[in-house]
Amino acid sequence: MKQLNIQLLMTGDELMTGDIVDSNSSMIAQYLKDLGLEVSRKVTVPDDLSMLSEEIKSLASQTDILIINGGLGPTVDDLTAQALALATDKMLEQHQDALSHLKKWCIKRDTALNKPNLKQTMLPEGCDIIANEKGSAVGFQVNFKNCTIYCTPGVPHELKTMMCQEILPQIAQRVPEGVSLNITRLQIFGIGESSIQKLIDDQLPDWPKEVELGFRAGLPLLEVKLTTKTAKALELKHKYLPRLYNLLGDHVLGTVDKRPKSLAEYVVEILTRNNQKITLAESCTGGMIASLLTQISGASNVFEAGFVTYSNNIKTQVLNVDEKTLIQHGAVSEQTVLAMAQGALAKTSADFVIAVSGIAGPEGGTQEKPVGSVWIAWGSKADIQRQYLIIPTPRVYFQNYVAAIGLDLIRRQLIQSTEVPNYIIERAMK
Amino acid sequence: MKQLNIQLLMTGDELMTGDIVDSNSSMIAQYLKDLGLEVSRKVTVPDDLSMLSEEIKSLASQTDILIINGGLGPTVDDLTAQALALATDKMLEQHQDALSHLKKWCIKRDTALNKPNLKQTMLPEGCDIIANEKGSAVGFQVNFKNCTIYCTPGVPHELKTMMCQEILPQIAQRVPEGVSLNITRLQIFGIGESSIQKLIDDQLPDWPKEVELGFRAGLPLLEVKLTTKTAKALELKHKYLPRLYNLLGDHVLGTVDKRPKSLAEYVVEILTRNNQKITLAESCTGGMIASLLTQISGASNVFEAGFVTYSNNIKTQVLNVDEKTLIQHGAVSEQTVLAMAQGALAKTSADFVIAVSGIAGPEGGTQEKPVGSVWIAWGSKADIQRQYLIIPTPRVYFQNYVAAIGLDLIRRQLIQSTEVPNYIIERAMK
Repeated sequence: MKQLNIQLLMTGDELMTGDIVDSNSSMIAQYLKDLGLEVSRKVTVPDDLSMLSEEIKSLASQTDILIINGGLGPTVDDLTAQALALATDKMLEQHQDALSHLKKWCIKRDTALNKPNLKQTMLPEGCDIIANEKGSAVGFQVNFKNCTIYCTPGVPHELKTMMCQEILPQIAQRVPEGVSLNITRLQIFGIGESSIQKLIDDQLPDWPKEVELGFRAGLPLLEVKLTTKTAKALELKHKYLPRLYNLLGDHVLGTVDKRPKSLAEYVVEILTRNNQKITLAESCTGGMIASLLTQISGASNVFEAGFVTYSNNIKTQVLNVDEKTLIQHGAVSEQTVLAMAQGALAKTSADFVIAVSGIAGPEGGTQEKPVGSVWIAWGSKADIQRQYLIIPTPRVYFQNYVAAIGLDLIRRQLIQSTEVPNYIIERAMK
Repeated sequence: MKQLNIQLLMTGDELMTGDIVDSNSSMIAQYLKDLGLEVSRKVTVPDDLSMLSEEIKSLASQTDILIINGGLGPTVDDLTAQALALATDKMLEQHQDALSHLKKWCIKRDTALNKPNLKQTMLPEGCDIIANEKGSAVGFQVNFKNCTIYCTPGVPHELKTMMCQEILPQIAQRVPEGVSLNITRLQIFGIGESSIQKLIDDQLPDWPKEVELGFRAGLPLLEVKLTTKTAKALELKHKYLPRLYNLLGDHVLGTVDKRPKSLAEYVVEILTRNNQKITLAESCTGGMIASLLTQISGASNVFEAGFVTYSNNIKTQVLNVDEKTLIQHGAVSEQTVLAMAQGALAKTSADFVIAVSGIAGPEGGTQEKPVGSVWIAWGSKADIQRQYLIIPTPRVYFQNYVAAIGLDLIRRQLIQSTEVPNYIIERAMK
């Protein structure tokens, strides 16, 4: 069975200059994966008419489906329609459906139709438009040679809606029967990539090569991916997956179903299930743990209050940390972080707490407590544990990683894990 | 003068499947830009040996410099060395410099050299290694046909160090004299892309086309980029840039020097200059504003405390918001957000405050206050202003955008701006 070949063409100066990070291609790939499809190649080019049209011609001749993303906007650097016209030897003409879409769009938002917007209605003759209920630019598609070309907007939530409502249903109809790509992804924290590889080499030496192993060091979760491509390999996976679970224990947070979950999401889920609440006393993470938790829909069921106590004064005034403790042991100490945790619990009705105090840098390190030092306290009133770590990474990585460790430590306490995590960074976090 | 042609080959299943967003190519491009160089094309392929080696062969034949990123790790899916050997028709052999690097690396970290790691020493014969002081994998480079191929690690801070210390100095020596690519980038907030285009069309109709305009809707700042490629065009830019500044006024935060700044960074800079402090009372943003501020090095000079008051109880207990206010007007109201701001100022010695209360969704909306509603209060004890907005975007975008608006409103107050921002989203934020 021939797998459908799908390639992406991402456009935009901002993708080439590094002004922006391309998250759209990830989104497209994730959706295609739900159909058991993979993107085989991705090319990114700047807003350059001749490069764009050459690339379209070249890609269209080697793939079944080409998804072009970006360049549908109202400004002069948006060139996709023009490039597609050039590549497929068509003229640009005003598309009536695109025009009526734009008119409706402006009425709905009570804005006037301006000239830059009108540019968005000039499309290659004969193309079909793809509805966009979220933005001013419609998408459009053409068949060229043996390739279906979809042109999609660069704005992520417009792209998302267009993919889900229009493009994926079309592609789904073309998925050949019998393709049995099967992927299982484990989300992991507290053990590193080469340690896992070594565990497998040592303890599961007969790991079948048909069950392909992949690793991804993520932000900050690690992912282990098991891919099989035949029914027989899938059987083997069903046999070996439980062994892998056994090997990795509570380092495994869960498997990816439709989308990866964040550590915060796992913590919110457990707390919700237990009908328990958490509070936070953050110094070096400066509100990041609170922000991670409250990004999860439903966080309000498990989180009422967080305290960002950045200065010593505020640690005393807001969390009742004894001034003497701060003077005697310093802000980054077991005693202070314990007092912060107790203070936050006392101020709220939360069952659990995470408190962190560390030196995010680049300033503020000393011989005894270098940049990257951090004390973490976590637990319940009855059982507050403490740990000291040194994580010598740049400021924002440090904050991200400390936030993740805090969440992971409370996760392990919530599931009453007895396994010992190893937060040494083998491959540092992205 | 011929511009140096530079292309990127990004490798990794995780980049194809959407499991990870590629920020490395942005980093590389940003560094090259400092040398006046642009990446002309970027190709991304999965961990597939034959695709990788074919792509290397094809790219090497059409570019002066090829930077390959990823696939240097210890695990089975790391294939770059093997693919490069195949593409350039070389054998893999143990590289003595790579081995001694790895041994030193393990001693420094007090870990044993394991077998997966040893794989990282097997490199194409005749290649030169590129030092990596941050990680276990060395980089390596070869000249193949007329192309210099650099193989670099996927871990961002390792890549960063290798680029700065080894690769960029090499490339800098090859920059042809007389290339005069000149780019100015304005960071903007409070006015949308098509409004800017229209302002220019209407008020600067003679804008010279040699001064190329580019737009980027960022997270959440908008960037307007002016590119010139000749000395004459640069002169024109010097003439038109002040007019553009004049047109855009305080919507312009600044120009990008080496790297884009965040809104929080602009706010921290102004407060530092003024020797003033800020505090926060966050409900719907859940600590995000605090986290954005404290991601900036030096934030401790201007920020001592933030309060994440997610529930009504905590708003009363921690910030002294009158219970009656909450009952009478609700948590998302002018009265509540004003009381939150006053409460935070009273609890700290800060000069300024941002307070936000809104409905991030997807739950919690009502007819009167739909999902996306938010009240923001900002200012000093003497002058607290309030604004109501409805921003109908998904939860995390909403939080990001509200955080940005809060920071921008305080920025405008700090610089005593009289211009009125327009926070309607023309192209929604990424």
